[in-house]
Amino acid sequence: MKQISSIAELRKKITNLKRQGNTIAFVPTMGALHEGHLSLMRLAQEKADKVVVSIYVNPEQFGPNEDFDSYPRQMEDDLKACEAEGVSIVFNPDDEIMYGSGKKYFKIKVDTLNEHMDGGSRPGFFEGITLVVNKLFNIVEPDFAIFGQKDIQQFQILSRMAKEFNHGVELVMAPIARANDGLALSSRNAYLSDQQRKIAPGLYRALKYVEKQIRDGVMEPKLLLNHQQDELEAKGFKNDYLNVFSMETMQPVEELESGNTYILAGAAYLGKTRLIDNIIIDL
Amino acid sequence: MKQISSIAELRKKITNLKRQGNTIAFVPTMGALHEGHLSLMRLAQEKADKVVVSIYVNPEQFGPNEDFDSYPRQMEDDLKACEAEGVSIVFNPDDEIMYGSGKKYFKIKVDTLNEHMDGGSRPGFFEGITLVVNKLFNIVEPDFAIFGQKDIQQFQILSRMAKEFNHGVELVMAPIARANDGLALSSRNAYLSDQQRKIAPGLYRALKYVEKQIRDGVMEPKLLLNHQQDELEAKGFKNDYLNVFSMETMQPVEELESGNTYILAGAAYLGKTRLIDNIIIDL
Repeated sequence: MKQISSIAELRKKITNLKRQGNTIAFVPTMGALHEGHLSLMRLAQEKADKVVVSIYVNPEQFGPNEDFDSYPRQMEDDLKACEAEGVSIVFNPDDEIMYGSGKKYFKIKVDTLNEHMDGGSRPGFFEGITLVVNKLFNIVEPDFAIFGQKDIQQFQILSRMAKEFNHGVELVMAPIARANDGLALSSRNAYLSDQQRKIAPGLYRALKYVEKQIRDGVMEPKLLLNHQQDELEAKGFKNDYLNVFSMETMQPVEELESGNTYILAGAAYLGKTRLIDNIIIDL
Repeated sequence: MKQISSIAELRKKITNLKRQGNTIAFVPTMGALHEGHLSLMRLAQEKADKVVVSIYVNPEQFGPNEDFDSYPRQMEDDLKACEAEGVSIVFNPDDEIMYGSGKKYFKIKVDTLNEHMDGGSRPGFFEGITLVVNKLFNIVEPDFAIFGQKDIQQFQILSRMAKEFNHGVELVMAPIARANDGLALSSRNAYLSDQQRKIAPGLYRALKYVEKQIRDGVMEPKLLLNHQQDELEAKGFKNDYLNVFSMETMQPVEELESGNTYILAGAAYLGKTRLIDNIIIDL
């Protein structure tokens, strides 16, 4: 496994791999790797000849009051985990390499897809993500890029961007990796106290409950969602959102219709830790 | 020479060329090729093993009252010209291939570099250019891209975009090709009547006159520029702008300083035809 921080060196290495006829699957991460990330790498192995993982905590996607400084960093463990998964290249640039210094003149403007869900709650979040992933796609030029379903709005936005910008990469969605009690794995789970960790699976249970009601025929789930939010608050969560969104437009939907695909998604805080989770529902 | 309109076919062809060890120089055009374009192709030949030319009249960079419909199209002549220059691939997609149908969610936001000059006069112009060139760079993935100095604001904006977006392409600026009487070559010169064509070199002469004064020591050229604009109006031009801009920031500059690089640039109409021209001044 090669660990590379220079863009020029990475390009050279990837060009060589491609000249030898290899296809490339790319797994962009912010490190603090857990079983969920490893499942992305395994999917990457199935898709292509060589796997490239990036580890970079992208400052552009954190708001001023968010957890950029405290975001878990554990490069040594991450490198061991990548090596064990048979990753060919780990790209871990620093901020100077990714963004340089001096004024930046270009941003990517995302229309409507980022209005709700995490985009609604975290202004600038998807501008930061599209900025860095657009750069990474141009640097790595992968055949496949693997992202997790947990960040489903990210997946949908980046899929569209790749299509509209002709990145020539196929995005592949990996299912959500969960702990035994159902909690979606996340690097931010490390922030949870023992007490919070016990409560945390409640978010997924709320989603599962609403999912069942929808599959049993509830086509206007608003009251149901409101009630589940009350339940979550009673358990100690502070709600951000819990709603059904169109998979196509990322807009909230009040009245479901069969034949469509929806995302039942929630975000809630336990203390300062923000948890997200979702279920895809094909009706 | 291969003429290709499909993106998938173009990618395949370019991947093969690259696997064989070829470097690629790319010349994006809107067709109606003249000697200026041919000089870009010759520069491209010097820079790389294979030359790819795109011919595509990009609707996104025309304003609602601009000349998209009447813009000259002469594909057969253009193909012959490319063939004669030893071009390897001509990419001539249609609008469906470049933009597809349905809602577009992504735009590129350019900050301040497009406030003045052609960006100031043509709202949305550089959003349209960055959108299509970002796509073309991602499709062609060239080592070099050749653009003319005539569209110097385009060159500067695309250079920065390529850097900030990590396109991995080196932009090369070709000097302005001129008719014997000094008129900068442009596909739009075809719109000029015989009478207008006679007047047209006046724009370049005005720039040359101001350039000489600046090189002779005039560091605040405002009055000079105003006077030249009056002269142009007297000759039958309708002025758009005539000014000195910072090469770095694309902002107008009132007081020049030695050690800096400036663009002395003008745009003016003859009838409905908009002419542009510029001179780079290293002080």
